[in-house]
Amino acid sequence: MAIPTKPPSGFRDFLPDACALRSLAVDVISRIYREHGFAQIATPAAEDLSTLTGKAGENEKLIFKILKRGEKLDLSLGESELADLGLRFDLTLPLARFYSRNKGILPNPFKAFQMGPVWRAERAQKGRYREFVQCDADIIGSDSPTCEIEVISAISAVFRELKVGEPTVVLNDRRILFGLFEKAGVPKEKHTAVCVILDKLDKVDRAKIVAELAECVGKDISGKLDPLVSGQAKLDQVSHAAPEAAENLAEIIKTLGAISGSPDNFSYSPTMVRGLDYYTGPIFEFRHPKVAGSVAGGGRYDRLTELFGGQAVPACGCSIGFERLMLLLEEAGAKPDGTRARACMTVFDKTLRAKSLETASALRKSGVSVDVYPGTGKLKAQFKYADSCGAAFALVIGPDEAEKGKVKAKDLKTGKETVETLESLPALLK
Amino acid sequence: MAIPTKPPSGFRDFLPDACALRSLAVDVISRIYREHGFAQIATPAAEDLSTLTGKAGENEKLIFKILKRGEKLDLSLGESELADLGLRFDLTLPLARFYSRNKGILPNPFKAFQMGPVWRAERAQKGRYREFVQCDADIIGSDSPTCEIEVISAISAVFRELKVGEPTVVLNDRRILFGLFEKAGVPKEKHTAVCVILDKLDKVDRAKIVAELAECVGKDISGKLDPLVSGQAKLDQVSHAAPEAAENLAEIIKTLGAISGSPDNFSYSPTMVRGLDYYTGPIFEFRHPKVAGSVAGGGRYDRLTELFGGQAVPACGCSIGFERLMLLLEEAGAKPDGTRARACMTVFDKTLRAKSLETASALRKSGVSVDVYPGTGKLKAQFKYADSCGAAFALVIGPDEAEKGKVKAKDLKTGKETVETLESLPALLK
Repeated sequence: MAIPTKPPSGFRDFLPDACALRSLAVDVISRIYREHGFAQIATPAAEDLSTLTGKAGENEKLIFKILKRGEKLDLSLGESELADLGLRFDLTLPLARFYSRNKGILPNPFKAFQMGPVWRAERAQKGRYREFVQCDADIIGSDSPTCEIEVISAISAVFRELKVGEPTVVLNDRRILFGLFEKAGVPKEKHTAVCVILDKLDKVDRAKIVAELAECVGKDISGKLDPLVSGQAKLDQVSHAAPEAAENLAEIIKTLGAISGSPDNFSYSPTMVRGLDYYTGPIFEFRHPKVAGSVAGGGRYDRLTELFGGQAVPACGCSIGFERLMLLLEEAGAKPDGTRARACMTVFDKTLRAKSLETASALRKSGVSVDVYPGTGKLKAQFKYADSCGAAFALVIGPDEAEKGKVKAKDLKTGKETVETLESLPALLK
Repeated sequence: MAIPTKPPSGFRDFLPDACALRSLAVDVISRIYREHGFAQIATPAAEDLSTLTGKAGENEKLIFKILKRGEKLDLSLGESELADLGLRFDLTLPLARFYSRNKGILPNPFKAFQMGPVWRAERAQKGRYREFVQCDADIIGSDSPTCEIEVISAISAVFRELKVGEPTVVLNDRRILFGLFEKAGVPKEKHTAVCVILDKLDKVDRAKIVAELAECVGKDISGKLDPLVSGQAKLDQVSHAAPEAAENLAEIIKTLGAISGSPDNFSYSPTMVRGLDYYTGPIFEFRHPKVAGSVAGGGRYDRLTELFGGQAVPACGCSIGFERLMLLLEEAGAKPDGTRARACMTVFDKTLRAKSLETASALRKSGVSVDVYPGTGKLKAQFKYADSCGAAFALVIGPDEAEKGKVKAKDLKTGKETVETLESLPALLK
């Protein structure tokens, strides 16, 4: 029986054009992160399950688990004994492990960037994949607002450089949220549940949110959260709930506005809460009119390293939603340059194969990218191949050219043919 | 209890310096492959288990298997029903699946390159990892010797470009081997077993190989394989076993010698058999005096696409052993350029934070890579940070400089300080 040729559900193949565009984005993001002082690190695709599930095991459902290897498995031990490793579902938890292990030999503070695939065992849907790329920038070891400003600046620069239209950035602070919850009388153990409800404000009808909040904490308390739910509160109206946090957030927003020259692009949002429960301070999301949800987002997570037995180390990071960025790039009609060979050397026949290959090799040594048709046969088919590979020129060494030490160059756009020498060719092809 | 900070056995973290060197190698390999007319494609980390295990299930032991998700697993169904996906253990099998699916919209022939991690559930040892990178170049859809010549040329160019010393290339052809086996009377079903024994010639005592062969096929037959085992046979002495294959191989070796200008670097090896059983024609290995085993290798595999229900499509490919290449690069003292910010802006105090961040941002816009110290505090500590991040200059905007619109630049190597303007700085820093 034939084996199916489709990748597994939620996993993707990338054809040459898609791959070239992804590669262009990866190169730009790496360069911008580097230019902002972030150093690249890498962690493995697989981690011990204990690392991934964390203290509370709250991430367990997201994880692709890897079956134990070696001797026959003892199935009588039950499901929890079958797997020992899992695929990472984000890059932040591996970073916290990496940092806890290596902090003695890293700069302090440490500015890291990571790019790579993560895996989530969620139901695959249009635009939601089970394997997708994340591009994270993090600063570990500092509680200064410089961290937020730098991380957000770097990611803004990525969008600017890729010319996909500048996103707006909404910011909030978990301490302000929790301060408001406390003042409204929301019991501490319900803070996260309230965040989860508020997080749906973008997608769900406001009346439904009000009802859900009332059910969660009772009408007396939920009524006091109205200024939050309405989304109308200004930062100075809520600053009483956490004065230091509000002052810090105001400085971040003001400085980002000054740096960018576009103060309107950065604003406080009382209802932006972000789903992940490890955030402890400022949180932020990049929004783009052409994409639902956020195109990048992050925040401060000052306690994640505690998981690995160390002290709490202040940390702040942001992740670009690479797949959404790719949608924007495609829509902007971005075309990667220099990913295809400029010319394709045809092979007239077997007897001229060596000559053609040697000439291609000489051209490559002079800095021209040259493909060679992998075969022999009709020149027309070889020209078609050259064109389908994106070459600008096809080169021919027939018996005539070989005798005279020449190469015929055919411009595949205009059809124009010229006879060149090995010396004149590079200038024509470049 | 604290969670351990080490990655799982056989998996690795990469610190900034290691990551920068790997990134340099990846960039060079991609560029050289592209310049030779190969187009990048990508396939997922995970494949259906049926794709990975193939017809005979011979690869099963290598595979990290992924537990089924969703409802509770039915353990009574036994071990074979627990997993549905597996991590890829090479890039060739996914390529064959990819090609079978997409051949209608790909150039014909199709020259592909892939770079990415693969995973093997083997015992981790010094220098052998369970997660490692492969860099493959393949040509599908042609049986021309141009394929072998182009693939080998591209990989030779990678080693040349990275300046790690040019490897030698040994070549053989499975058809010559099988022809010799047949003439010696080795039954067809033992061809692979004999290959596996011969494959150990590099590592195991010759006498032991002779004994193993005798045990496998009987002394009468194994005696006739002596010219093979001795490794002394010349190509023209064995060509009678498969005349066409021998002529083809001779052309490949001769043309590679002519192209490279180093004919001695390419030679026939009667004992090089390569382990994988999907090879059908020419096979080749790159060897380097500083590394045991091969640093790259590949061959022709004309029947792999049959797995996916299509016809057999001729194909030829080669894979660079990325981890061994990294050892060579490290030993050659390769240093990646441009991966660190040139300058680090210090932050004198809170009141000058915005000014310092704005100046850094202006410098970045003029093309200089600038880190900003993520915090405030003693300048001495900030200089130390700048140095530990590899910056060449530290920049200071104290109250004096701020008032005069100047920036102090400290050369971190010489200690020399100069006072600059925003206009004079880029020239100094670049």
